[in-house]
Amino acid sequence: MMEDIAVKIERANQEAVRRILAGDPVWEDVRPAREAIPGMTENTILHAGPPIPWERMAGPVRGAVMAALIFEGRAESPDQAARLAAGGEIRFSPCHEHRSVGAMSGVISPSMPVFVVRNASFGNTAYCAWRDLAQASGCFDEPTIKNMRWLRDVGMPTLAAAVRRRGNLELKPLWARALTMGDELHNRVSAGTSIFARAMAPHLVRAVADSSAVAEVLEYLADFDLAIVPLTMAGCKSVMDAAHGIEASTVVTAIARNGVEVGIRVSGLGDRWFAGPAQPVKGTYHSGFTAADGCPDLGDSAIIETAGFGGCAIAAAPTHVTVADEPGAAGAYTREMYEITLARNPSYPIPTLGFQGIPTGIDIRKVVETGILPIVDTPVAHRDPGRVRGVIGFGMSRPPMECFLKALTAFGEKVLP
Amino acid sequence: MMEDIAVKIERANQEAVRRILAGDPVWEDVRPAREAIPGMTENTILHAGPPIPWERMAGPVRGAVMAALIFEGRAESPDQAARLAAGGEIRFSPCHEHRSVGAMSGVISPSMPVFVVRNASFGNTAYCAWRDLAQASGCFDEPTIKNMRWLRDVGMPTLAAAVRRRGNLELKPLWARALTMGDELHNRVSAGTSIFARAMAPHLVRAVADSSAVAEVLEYLADFDLAIVPLTMAGCKSVMDAAHGIEASTVVTAIARNGVEVGIRVSGLGDRWFAGPAQPVKGTYHSGFTAADGCPDLGDSAIIETAGFGGCAIAAAPTHVTVADEPGAAGAYTREMYEITLARNPSYPIPTLGFQGIPTGIDIRKVVETGILPIVDTPVAHRDPGRVRGVIGFGMSRPPMECFLKALTAFGEKVLP
Repeated sequence: MMEDIAVKIERANQEAVRRILAGDPVWEDVRPAREAIPGMTENTILHAGPPIPWERMAGPVRGAVMAALIFEGRAESPDQAARLAAGGEIRFSPCHEHRSVGAMSGVISPSMPVFVVRNASFGNTAYCAWRDLAQASGCFDEPTIKNMRWLRDVGMPTLAAAVRRRGNLELKPLWARALTMGDELHNRVSAGTSIFARAMAPHLVRAVADSSAVAEVLEYLADFDLAIVPLTMAGCKSVMDAAHGIEASTVVTAIARNGVEVGIRVSGLGDRWFAGPAQPVKGTYHSGFTAADGCPDLGDSAIIETAGFGGCAIAAAPTHVTVADEPGAAGAYTREMYEITLARNPSYPIPTLGFQGIPTGIDIRKVVETGILPIVDTPVAHRDPGRVRGVIGFGMSRPPMECFLKALTAFGEKVLP
Repeated sequence: MMEDIAVKIERANQEAVRRILAGDPVWEDVRPAREAIPGMTENTILHAGPPIPWERMAGPVRGAVMAALIFEGRAESPDQAARLAAGGEIRFSPCHEHRSVGAMSGVISPSMPVFVVRNASFGNTAYCAWRDLAQASGCFDEPTIKNMRWLRDVGMPTLAAAVRRRGNLELKPLWARALTMGDELHNRVSAGTSIFARAMAPHLVRAVADSSAVAEVLEYLADFDLAIVPLTMAGCKSVMDAAHGIEASTVVTAIARNGVEVGIRVSGLGDRWFAGPAQPVKGTYHSGFTAADGCPDLGDSAIIETAGFGGCAIAAAPTHVTVADEPGAAGAYTREMYEITLARNPSYPIPTLGFQGIPTGIDIRKVVETGILPIVDTPVAHRDPGRVRGVIGFGMSRPPMECFLKALTAFGEKVLP
């Protein structure tokens, strides 16, 4: 009987891994959230991480919600926005429950344009907004709202025209190439953003007659090194969603953080979240800030690690700020991740580890058995809303063991007789 | 007495190394060769490597000269071009003797626009044409001539307008960044070209009203991975020229190949060339070609190695085609180069070697003493003119020991009483 269960889990996990390895994300469009995202209504605001009510939300998430309500024309001031958010009319929901992911606060409101990425192998789509980093970090001042409007009215429509002219952009070769160029694809993405800008530039020029709009988009891409991250997040989400819902699989399909709790989802455990308290981030803080200023672990961007990149693949990024001054640190992290994963993805070899593939398919059993928690290479937001335009540092975080213990217990209850 | 000489050499080499480390190349303009390059006349054609008469030139160099004469309107057919080249009217001269460098055949004719790079620390300038790779490899067919005209009439003027609008582009941070992205900066330049395209794209759009010209330049940059090489070559030339002419220095300031001979120049030995026979290139050949089809070692691009990049820095490029399938090969080459150089350039750390700087300042004494020859990561042209549009492979080459023995002998004659 027990043997039967072990075989069943083994087979389910093989299938989950097969689907992750076969994932083939292609960027095909940019559309307003209200048109693209399932379940999005005029009163919906999505946020990062597991579900959480307004009253318990972390500072930067509250700030980002306020920015979104001003941006949507639903409020004229931050105070008015906060009252509206608290009033019950707005329905808050995790991005992950709408085939979406959001960076940092992860706040997506109906008018925000989102990247549409299709997993060409399985047909499912996933979405992520092209982020204003200040808003994502909880800022709601005038320049932030102005940039959100620019993204909606100029930036994203211009990119949309370019990708429609070009045709679908395959993310798999872009990611593979970036890994050979020192990216881990979460916070060290200089290569990914450079390749992306270089590839899209001619199509931007040919697709859009307004040269000022084209120049502004190219300036955004040239100046904002993290520009590729939301597209990568949508791609990883499309890959991991295809591996979700396999009966008896113990593979983690999402790690997501709302700044108060970290939640994980497991392929064989449906839409349940298994959550524990978000931890402070051990990191490198920008001048004037310390860990005490940082919001605990925040953002859906850990979908990048869930797919095997970011902290899991950080051996590929020895020059990244969070590991560069500790010799061997990058390699050690990735080697640790091999202990808790089921496969090495041959599509994404890491040059510094003898071209071994990235660690793929985090197994809740292995996490509990080894005591090794997944590692997330994460930006850090200020804990208070509206205090800082952007992030205050970068660091490494781990979800609490509680998530994995709860998930394994639920799994046991489900599969054991 | 001997001790005095040793001290003198030591001091001279310290000064040469100081100047190389202080080199600060900035791209400031694009201008026609006839206006920019000293000594260029309407009857001048420059070529790669040490001096060589038309009759003895390698196939690809002859082919490139024929292409240049057709391009300049001096001949209407390849045969007519060859007769003109043989007739004595055209003055052939090495690029290196005109503050210039040229990729592969290195042929530069008066109408070709060239990158102008200034070494901001020392004020000297250097030049390199933005290369049509087919012409550089000896091709002279209609599409080649057409592309040469496009570079002259559209590509280079468009880039010129962009750099003038932007202001000088510093190459030092670009090179340093590319080395952290898997480039060695000679043949693995995906990162350098991507960073360059991303940085210039907005300026191209803002500087030039003709969106079709802008799109064509961006397409060239997106499609041609080696696009950055000529700019890098001019930059390296400007750095090494500033270290040339130091009495009693044994530092190599140029390694250059014309497909028949390889020549080196030494800081303390004036404008003399020390040459030996060009060797076949051990390499990875494109389908349908073998080493027997390859022209022996060709091109001024070894200025990149002379400055410490390329083969010398190949540890930074473990995914590069010529080393990727031999584990550890890249690191071993660079470690070998530390044996024959005087310094490690701290401006250009190599992540895979614990952030040690690139090997800098090849010393003819160390080459002769250790028997270790500098390693050049080089493209290979077909040995016959006009046979192939572009290169037929990539490989590693070494200049013959003869160059270094001759130079050391000359040096002894000069400094010994």
